[in-house]
Amino acid sequence: MVKYQDAELNDIFSALADPTRRALLARLEGEDALSISALAQPFEVSLPAVMKHLNVLSDAGLITREKTGRTVSVRLQAEPMAHAMQWLSRYEHFWTERLDRLAAFVEAAPDAETTSEPAQSAPSAKSAKSAKSAKSPHPNASKAP
Amino acid sequence: MVKYQDAELNDIFSALADPTRRALLARLEGEDALSISALAQPFEVSLPAVMKHLNVLSDAGLITREKTGRTVSVRLQAEPMAHAMQWLSRYEHFWTERLDRLAAFVEAAPDAETTSEPAQSAPSAKSAKSAKSAKSPHPNASKAP
Repeated sequence: MVKYQDAELNDIFSALADPTRRALLARLEGEDALSISALAQPFEVSLPAVMKHLNVLSDAGLITREKTGRTVSVRLQAEPMAHAMQWLSRYEHFWTERLDRLAAFVEAAPDAETTSEPAQSAPSAKSAKSAKSAKSPHPNASKAP
Repeated sequence: MVKYQDAELNDIFSALADPTRRALLARLEGEDALSISALAQPFEVSLPAVMKHLNVLSDAGLITREKTGRTVSVRLQAEPMAHAMQWLSRYEHFWTERLDRLAAFVEAAPDAETTSEPAQSAPSAKSAKSAKSAKSPHPNASKAP
């Protein structure tokens, strides 16, 4: 079972290690299905190169291909990425704890500076709050392919 | 900026695409730091092979190495994995929506079977709840290297 999961994770992470393959997945994200020529159209790589990338994505279970007459429709199959995310989630506490420590530091720092004015403790709580908000993922950054 | 992120993601996903490298990271997770020989000890691969894997992990920013006298200490540096997780999170709605549909189906199915006994609607709500709980990651599965 672990060996099977191992092989699956190898394929998924390998498939995601190429920027063209990640861009192909991003292009499929907003579509129900795309023909290979429509999918390949914005890319500067040759059609055979796109076909090779699609083979890698298909082997990792990240796309499905369906032939209707002369047209091959490509569909995103995102579910295997859940396993990759699950594997990564084991390490999530490292960066969330670091951000918590940063928030605590920001909260403490203005107090140290303003020991002569102990009444001004309100801004420190505000700074800590804005530092904590950095923990949430940035929607625009995550949209980059 | 996007190109820089691209190269970083290539390195991270490539580094994670090997089961020995994932196991090395998992071994470092519970430790503050390990010497290379202590780190390599449970692995069936040669020390030069471990060194090569450590180079790949270091290039991806996932470990740091520090030399003190004759001993090299290896430390986990998990933060770059946050970028990989952020990239994957864009696709998260695909599997969460599928689980929501499954929960809705499980919720609806017992009602259809028990139309002759409309009073028995309590078990359907229970089934839907247990189907939804499948959405949370399984702690044991994610502990596998």
